[in-house]
Amino acid sequence: MTGRNMVTRGIFVGRFQPFHKGHLGAIIEILERVEELVIVVGSAQYSHTLSNPFTVGERITMIKISLEEIEIHPSRYWIVPVPDVNRGTLWVSQVVQYSPKFGLVFTNEPLTRRLFVEAGFPVEAVPFVDRQNYSASEIRKRMLRGEGWEELVPPRVRAFIKEIDGVERLQDLNRTDKMG
Amino acid sequence: MTGRNMVTRGIFVGRFQPFHKGHLGAIIEILERVEELVIVVGSAQYSHTLSNPFTVGERITMIKISLEEIEIHPSRYWIVPVPDVNRGTLWVSQVVQYSPKFGLVFTNEPLTRRLFVEAGFPVEAVPFVDRQNYSASEIRKRMLRGEGWEELVPPRVRAFIKEIDGVERLQDLNRTDKMG
Amino acid sequence: MTGRNMVTRGIFVGRFQPFHKGHLGAIIEILERVEELVIVVGSAQYSHTLSNPFTVGERITMIKISLEEIEIHPSRYWIVPVPDVNRGTLWVSQVVQYSPKFGLVFTNEPLTRRLFVEAGFPVEAVPFVDRQNYSASEIRKRMLRGEGWEELVPPRVRAFIKEIDGVERLQDLNRTDKMG
Amino acid sequence: MTGRNMVTRGIFVGRFQPFHKGHLGAIIEILERVEELVIVVGSAQYSHTLSNPFTVGERITMIKISLEEIEIHPSRYWIVPVPDVNRGTLWVSQVVQYSPKFGLVFTNEPLTRRLFVEAGFPVEAVPFVDRQNYSASEIRKRMLRGEGWEELVPPRVRAFIKEIDGVERLQDLNRTDKMG
Amino acid sequence: MTGRNMVTRGIFVGRFQPFHKGHLGAIIEILERVEELVIVVGSAQYSHTLSNPFTVGERITMIKISLEEIEIHPSRYWIVPVPDVNRGTLWVSQVVQYSPKFGLVFTNEPLTRRLFVEAGFPVEAVPFVDRQNYSASEIRKRMLRGEGWEELVPPRVRAFIKEIDGVERLQDLNRTDKMG
Amino acid sequence: MTGRNMVTRGIFVGRFQPFHKGHLGAIIEILERVEELVIVVGSAQYSHTLSNPFTVGERITMIKISLEEIEIHPSRYWIVPVPDVNRGTLWVSQVVQYSPKFGLVFTNEPLTRRLFVEAGFPVEAVPFVDRQNYSASEIRKRMLRGEGWEELVPPRVRAFIKEIDGVERLQDLNRTDKMG
Repeated sequence: MTGRNMVTRGIFVGRFQPFHKGHLGAIIEILERVEELVIVVGSAQYSHTLSNPFTVGERITMIKISLEEIEIHPSRYWIVPVPDVNRGTLWVSQVVQYSPKFGLVFTNEPLTRRLFVEAGFPVEAVPFVDRQNYSASEIRKRMLRGEGWEELVPPRVRAFIKEIDGVERLQDLNRTDKMG
Repeated sequence: MTGRNMVTRGIFVGRFQPFHKGHLGAIIEILERVEELVIVVGSAQYSHTLSNPFTVGERITMIKISLEEIEIHPSRYWIVPVPDVNRGTLWVSQVVQYSPKFGLVFTNEPLTRRLFVEAGFPVEAVPFVDRQNYSASEIRKRMLRGEGWEELVPPRVRAFIKEIDGVERLQDLNRTDKMG
Repeated sequence: MTGRNMVTRGIFVGRFQPFHKGHLGAIIEILERVEELVIVVGSAQYSHTLSNPFTVGERITMIKISLEEIEIHPSRYWIVPVPDVNRGTLWVSQVVQYSPKFGLVFTNEPLTRRLFVEAGFPVEAVPFVDRQNYSASEIRKRMLRGEGWEELVPPRVRAFIKEIDGVERLQDLNRTDKMG
Repeated sequence: MTGRNMVTRGIFVGRFQPFHKGHLGAIIEILERVEELVIVVGSAQYSHTLSNPFTVGERITMIKISLEEIEIHPSRYWIVPVPDVNRGTLWVSQVVQYSPKFGLVFTNEPLTRRLFVEAGFPVEAVPFVDRQNYSASEIRKRMLRGEGWEELVPPRVRAFIKEIDGVERLQDLNRTDKMG
Repeated sequence: MTGRNMVTRGIFVGRFQPFHKGHLGAIIEILERVEELVIVVGSAQYSHTLSNPFTVGERITMIKISLEEIEIHPSRYWIVPVPDVNRGTLWVSQVVQYSPKFGLVFTNEPLTRRLFVEAGFPVEAVPFVDRQNYSASEIRKRMLRGEGWEELVPPRVRAFIKEIDGVERLQDLNRTDKMG
Repeated sequence: MTGRNMVTRGIFVGRFQPFHKGHLGAIIEILERVEELVIVVGSAQYSHTLSNPFTVGERITMIKISLEEIEIHPSRYWIVPVPDVNRGTLWVSQVVQYSPKFGLVFTNEPLTRRLFVEAGFPVEAVPFVDRQNYSASEIRKRMLRGEGWEELVPPRVRAFIKEIDGVERLQDLNRTDKMG
């Protein structure tokens, strides 16, 4: 069980709304640098809103089927949903509480980086390929407009989103009735 | 007690900020199709904000005095406040928990329709008269601008909103002090 | 609309787990002293626990069918669920927010009385018949032990609790599995 | 991807305070009957109390290292922490929201069984060996009294609890200072 | 202990993001009219957002060091953090619960004024000097743009914000990564 | 401003239900060892229960009037209410968020000590005189039984508790009505 000590486990924090090829590429690169990776699925309690359309169960599913598709061995990653606490500095403690012990944080999100640095964790940037296109908000925007989004996500995620009528759900969320 | 079974009770979900003639017209039409109607007053915990200016107690009052005014028999409806849970798919369970049993949902709100359909409930559209004018957000906008809103709500609601200084409250909510 | 002013509307606060003949007798007596009564169904968010076995929707149903059974006119009462806030002095504000305006509080519960008195409301004792037997905790105890509870509740509540398998639910709640 | 459809995925709900041989035995047996198992770690938000001494991150760790120790293939299980909602009937929706889709529930806990049955899910009993000893509350009791608990949990859980000073934490929680 | 009765203690409600010379000037003037002042630091639970960048501990510190700097005697004021309740009319009860007893409210914020007036408290306007510049949102805007903000806050607050890297934190909060 | 750095500020955590001579004695002794003391008033959101009878505003008042009575200079202490988060390891972050920066923790409560030690803070025991009698739970017990409690609290606390009818409140909380 060498290597299961703290310094060789990292975390990667995201909302994964939805999980896309940019996330997948980042995970592949991070796994070259840590023995195990904890994939923290943030904002776990939200779903069915414009910026959080998918439930955390659906997002966990997207991640697991994508990693299985490219045959990353499941002993190398953990998938851990973490609900937000909405209270600034408590977020780091919340992640520590939900995750197995870790010694390194990967994130490009400025606030997340700042909070973990202030809490004394080493933080590294996430290596990304083609950040312009591999963006979850870009994908949601294309889904809303009925534009092509399919090639930005892994094949199994594409199939899964169709299976759960994900695009139609997002478009519904964008409609509103004025009755109030 | 025939007719008190599940299939003959429907629910109608709204925030009723404020209750207007469009809501009242819808209730009258729905009551032609169900024996009993549960009027679910959503977002019950909010008040004194620009989009939720009235307390749930005030909204319940508006509904009851309007239905009494046109002499709908009180055995035909229930008025049930339900606080939001802010967590996507839990909303349907929350309504089920707060409401007497029901078998049919009336709503035009796309997300509400989608969530209840996914949970297996039959959902029908709400029949509306003149949806353009009978809109709660339109009424709040007119109140803020000091324009005429009075004929969009039932007579007793008009009197009640004046009694509680509702328009002045909404206008106060729109002012803000920069001191922070 | 004479009489719809504040001084002639009272509230009666309870959890109604379940609604029993003592509650019903109290409501009948209180209605001799106020024009309208708001029946506040407290702890609305809880259900499926030993002291709160019934959902608030079920409790609302018990109250309404009991009052209809003895033909109290529905214009004389309101049934309003109110979730707990679990924070001492905020409870009075919570009731004020959920309820139509009221001017008199009926309660025998010492804390409720104290909180409303401190907030400046007139409070009167609830007139009860045979307080020893007409007790919700006594009824739940009998249900758990399989003893007779039926004659302590109004006939329609008896039928309703059987329809929803209420006794079996309570007995299930009392079992526990040690696996943990 | 045959077999990844709903009917072949089950869930097993527990708090795992701590994870013991009874849980492990149950999982082994359940995996004979479903293709994939979602292990739901309930009460995720609690830790450092007498009945919930371990954080959810620690409990996830216990489960994963135990299943790896006996070489169950990680593609066959999911480990999903779910925070309580403390509101009766919302618990089922919460589990549905956090979990990948499932079609069968394994539980011996009477309330959990009842809630899932009422929500329309098929529920089966958990097969257990020596339920008398393999009990989390029994283990916590022994830890508090300084009695032997080690052989009731899998070897790696034993080592992990010692690594995090778990017994000492529990004993601390049992002390209290009267100053208040 | 004359003077410690209710009518001679006032409250001043603000978020103090950050505490500036306008706040300080107001406190000095209010202290001419009340014997003791309770400075209520609202939205206590928030930090690290664009409109609430500073933790409540940091805001308390800013206030105390500023009042000490100009040698206001500490027996004349209380600094009391109060978390929001996000539920309209409960806010007044929340302040009453957290604060020592008070008899007068100072505020320019229209909603705060309205809520306290409706709850029966006397409310007076806060006397301000140069409201245009002494605005917390103006200060945050300047911090974001890298413009001069230093002379709008008391000298010790200036030093404190630099010590905690406050400007850099705010600028970080304004950056965002599109990966999502 | 020498001495306002982190190592010379300590915190003392308690619920102070009520504040008694044991607390006061501890504060006097701690102030011999730190330049400034932050008195953290925990469980801030609770009141009107048997173990938390006093509001946080009342507890703050008790502390301030007691420290003024013995003429401890107010520049030497801070009084900071902190609401519980009910989630184990988040409690330390919550205290850090609400308090000015500190470098030393004084507590005798085993869980508090453990949580702060695990988070990396130095923790020291609180020096107490006559711990047997100076206990808040002992005082509440005496109040409930109508026994003498007065000499266990500082003179101004005694007067304050009488002014707010504290003993009567506690006794009310102990009564209960069986109607339910």
